[in-house]
Amino acid sequence: MPLYKAPLEDMRFVLHQLFDSNDIAALPGNEDFTPELIDSVLDEAAKFSEGVLFPLNQSGDLEGCTYENGVVRTPTGFKDAYKAFCDGGWTAMGADPAFGGQGMPIPAAMMIEEMLCSANVAFGLYPGLTHGAYVALKHAGSEEQKQTYLPNLVSGKWSGTMCLTEPHCGTDLGMLRTRAVPNDDGSYSITGNKIFISAGEHDLTENIIHLVLARLPDAPAGVKGISMFVVPKFLLREDGSVGPRNGLQCTAIEHKMGIKASATCAMSFDGATGWLVGEAHKGLRAMFTMMNTERLSVGIQGLGVAETAYQNAVAYARDRIQGRSLTGIKAEDKQADPIMVHPDVRRMLLTMRAYIEGCRALAGWVARELEILAKSDDSDAKQAADDFASLMTPIVKAMFTDLGFEIASLAVQTYGGHGYIRDHGIEQYVRDARISMLYEGTNGIQALDLVGRKLPQDGGRLLTRFLDPVLEFIEAHEGNLALAPFLPPLQQAIEHVQIATGFIMENAMSNHDEIGAASVDYLRLFGLAALAFVWARMVAIAAPKAESEDAQFYRAKVQTAKFFMERLLPQTGALLAAIQSGSATMMEFEDAAF
Amino acid sequence: MPLYKAPLEDMRFVLHQLFDSNDIAALPGNEDFTPELIDSVLDEAAKFSEGVLFPLNQSGDLEGCTYENGVVRTPTGFKDAYKAFCDGGWTAMGADPAFGGQGMPIPAAMMIEEMLCSANVAFGLYPGLTHGAYVALKHAGSEEQKQTYLPNLVSGKWSGTMCLTEPHCGTDLGMLRTRAVPNDDGSYSITGNKIFISAGEHDLTENIIHLVLARLPDAPAGVKGISMFVVPKFLLREDGSVGPRNGLQCTAIEHKMGIKASATCAMSFDGATGWLVGEAHKGLRAMFTMMNTERLSVGIQGLGVAETAYQNAVAYARDRIQGRSLTGIKAEDKQADPIMVHPDVRRMLLTMRAYIEGCRALAGWVARELEILAKSDDSDAKQAADDFASLMTPIVKAMFTDLGFEIASLAVQTYGGHGYIRDHGIEQYVRDARISMLYEGTNGIQALDLVGRKLPQDGGRLLTRFLDPVLEFIEAHEGNLALAPFLPPLQQAIEHVQIATGFIMENAMSNHDEIGAASVDYLRLFGLAALAFVWARMVAIAAPKAESEDAQFYRAKVQTAKFFMERLLPQTGALLAAIQSGSATMMEFEDAAF
Repeated sequence: MPLYKAPLEDMRFVLHQLFDSNDIAALPGNEDFTPELIDSVLDEAAKFSEGVLFPLNQSGDLEGCTYENGVVRTPTGFKDAYKAFCDGGWTAMGADPAFGGQGMPIPAAMMIEEMLCSANVAFGLYPGLTHGAYVALKHAGSEEQKQTYLPNLVSGKWSGTMCLTEPHCGTDLGMLRTRAVPNDDGSYSITGNKIFISAGEHDLTENIIHLVLARLPDAPAGVKGISMFVVPKFLLREDGSVGPRNGLQCTAIEHKMGIKASATCAMSFDGATGWLVGEAHKGLRAMFTMMNTERLSVGIQGLGVAETAYQNAVAYARDRIQGRSLTGIKAEDKQADPIMVHPDVRRMLLTMRAYIEGCRALAGWVARELEILAKSDDSDAKQAADDFASLMTPIVKAMFTDLGFEIASLAVQTYGGHGYIRDHGIEQYVRDARISMLYEGTNGIQALDLVGRKLPQDGGRLLTRFLDPVLEFIEAHEGNLALAPFLPPLQQAIEHVQIATGFIMENAMSNHDEIGAASVDYLRLFGLAALAFVWARMVAIAAPKAESEDAQFYRAKVQTAKFFMERLLPQTGALLAAIQSGSATMMEFEDAAF
Repeated sequence: MPLYKAPLEDMRFVLHQLFDSNDIAALPGNEDFTPELIDSVLDEAAKFSEGVLFPLNQSGDLEGCTYENGVVRTPTGFKDAYKAFCDGGWTAMGADPAFGGQGMPIPAAMMIEEMLCSANVAFGLYPGLTHGAYVALKHAGSEEQKQTYLPNLVSGKWSGTMCLTEPHCGTDLGMLRTRAVPNDDGSYSITGNKIFISAGEHDLTENIIHLVLARLPDAPAGVKGISMFVVPKFLLREDGSVGPRNGLQCTAIEHKMGIKASATCAMSFDGATGWLVGEAHKGLRAMFTMMNTERLSVGIQGLGVAETAYQNAVAYARDRIQGRSLTGIKAEDKQADPIMVHPDVRRMLLTMRAYIEGCRALAGWVARELEILAKSDDSDAKQAADDFASLMTPIVKAMFTDLGFEIASLAVQTYGGHGYIRDHGIEQYVRDARISMLYEGTNGIQALDLVGRKLPQDGGRLLTRFLDPVLEFIEAHEGNLALAPFLPPLQQAIEHVQIATGFIMENAMSNHDEIGAASVDYLRLFGLAALAFVWARMVAIAAPKAESEDAQFYRAKVQTAKFFMERLLPQTGALLAAIQSGSATMMEFEDAAF
């Protein structure tokens, strides 16, 4: 049976030491969110995740969702867990108090989200999509729409979805066919078929609020003719209570590689009644607000799954005895040594750890900037925060999820043959992690967003939001002996980013294919450099505290940083070389020869 | 629905052009195996794989094996397919004519094995294990045992297994507990529990011949006290016909991540009658003969699964339209361009292709040396062949299977969200590929075998069997203009291997942990260098033929080689840096801090 214990010590390190939580508490509206309060909320979230959600993770995978005549049933235990989740106020955590939310600062909310994903990523998708719908409606909805839908979405009484994908179009939404015809009463009749709708139908909530992308009769072709509609499963009565069924139904659920407890629905809208959200033909922009939130969430899924996979690999490596250490017997009292003595097992565990803790720190940074963007009254600070979060969103989404899958696979490798057996529960993490590289824009699309959109945006200003603090840090710590082994590799990685950026920008002007040829390797290169920076910052804090006897946590930080710099960061050189080879070879290859 | 077409053109290129098939035909006993005959056998194998085995691949995964009261049923269609497989003589293909085999040269046999793995890796395990049992019995069995068992194993009437793993021991067989007590009639009573026994029980054959590792009463502790026994499911009557059930049974089958159509059995031996194979206490050595064959086969599984995954990714990339090329519209007649126009999709496809064709060529080389070892009468040539195959076995097993998994995952990525859906059939390849990194010795164990055993063996002689031909090739082609872009990266990769080898050998003398710390990165570094060499050799053949109009195959070879050198080979630098960081950081990390 797998185990999970929320990594509270590391989360608190990121929230309170790596970044200054007093800054966050000082933002308007955050007065109550003292470090002490946040710590106690984290404690409660840990208890709930470990005690309620995690025990349903393996059984949810085995049982999966079932579909019968338009009705979707979630696995045994999910209804009760969801009720407890709402009762505990967890659906309201990150929402605006004006709609019944708790207004939890984003850095803490993101840590709690990580716990949910670690405990049960399939469960987490239900409230996750609801939060996405909340964000989109809050951003683009009319005052009446907000009052109608947001309180019940925040309380979890209702859930939300985003209905974008159609069988013939996912990435390329310009091709979507779902139609919206105006009715006399100001509503619209929505007709079309959507697929891959997470939480499109289930038995957890009284109502499901679909945000649907569709075309108006006068819509221009392509992405500039897409509008967003709010389409509830049950129409509402005058008093706001749930009335008759709307003209939509779930026609099937997908059988998937993993996240089997999450209902992935094919939805048919047959003249369903909906209402326009925001301006006509501007639906994609409204949806992108939601999507950016979702992309960060999906990145956190990668991190969350990785954490649980790591913890189980560690437990197995401590427990499983097999063979003797290459340098002599370590466990005299046993027939063999725990496999943790073997260097290659330690290499796998430290690889997982170095990526996970680096990603958590980087997520903490992004969350902090998002919080500044949301609550600061300093417009320069808001702009800087917006720039940084925009730059980092595709990296968090793509790199975290790529690494989540790699880490889950490393955990299986630590188990040996036992890792392949369902009963052990570890192969589930590989299957569950795989989706996060695909949905909310494939990781290839994230890389195009980074290189094709974020880098050139505003004359390259976004990039300086990352590079400036790095260069300041390096300068500030030049004489810091504790950092001496860490600055040169960081510097080199940053140089690799700079060289790669210059190469792409220069070549892309004459040939746009250079963007696509470089993008995925560039995103990883950038992401590794960002991890190197947060690792160096963590060392700057941890190294002075690492000497005392009880400072195991800080010593481990410094050693993990060292492992990251020595073993993992050298990949940037290979990535740079790959980028510099350009697009010619791949584009010259004859299509028919594949 | 997935597709598969055997890559006959590339297989023939490797068999006949990259290596000289006349050399193979000139070996004693190979007189009949002209290139023409081999080509016609490949054609037949392709037909059988594509037409009979491949259609059962997806249905076999969905249905899986079932277990009831000790009886295991394979999925619908497997019995008929197995009968057709035997009738076609495919079980006999690689076996000695003295026992009814066809004596097919190993290079061709390995290509056919690849086809089976591409078409249906779960099916392929049944005859695959039988061939392993054949190899072990032929090598270590008495004349009587050979006559008793081999003809029926070769015809496929009976199947075979290797029973090594027990719940508490896999890698560390020294701990195994299964006991063998001598009976008065020269047989032994075998008692113990084995797990993870592929094809341990099924409904395909009349009898199942288990090769079981167990301890005699006077056995020394550890791996030097293990003996091998042949233990048939049904005891044989005097006339060789199948008699009463032996005292063994399958107590369960495992529920696994993939290869669901392959029965992975827990076996209970309760005083089963068995006979000693080879010398007492020397069972591990006998089993290793079988295991080396199996390790190469498992490597070929990685390659085979990768090929099918690649073919389907290509088909999807041609068919799926989504978005427009970054350099302008390519398919004017369509609403969007096929995704193959996007550089990142091409990057994924060429990554798969470059690894697959490189691995196939490297497998062809290893197979050629194994054939020389098996049939040559030149003792120097045999020694050289044995050295080379020993050196390369862990690389073929580990690198091919790591890449098989990576490639299957890249194929899923090419499909986008559709890749995650079972109906498309592509996620199955990720699940099916994952096992090959674990069984027959985890890939970590393969790396230890390479660095800890093969490198130092015979004063480092094995390594020269690889380096000498590389250095000769580089020298011979120094003035070859067609190879000018390819030799410098090859040279650098080889230098990286040499530097890494020197580093490990020097440091391992004082600290054995350096072996384990470097091993996995070293294996990949070495493997990439070996791929670089076979790619350079392929260019030497293909480049002169690439100019003519109908030479798409040869042009693609040269371009794929270029892609490999530019995009993939630079990883050797990062691997070298990781190796050179040594074992200190990972070993110093406190166990309790994980």
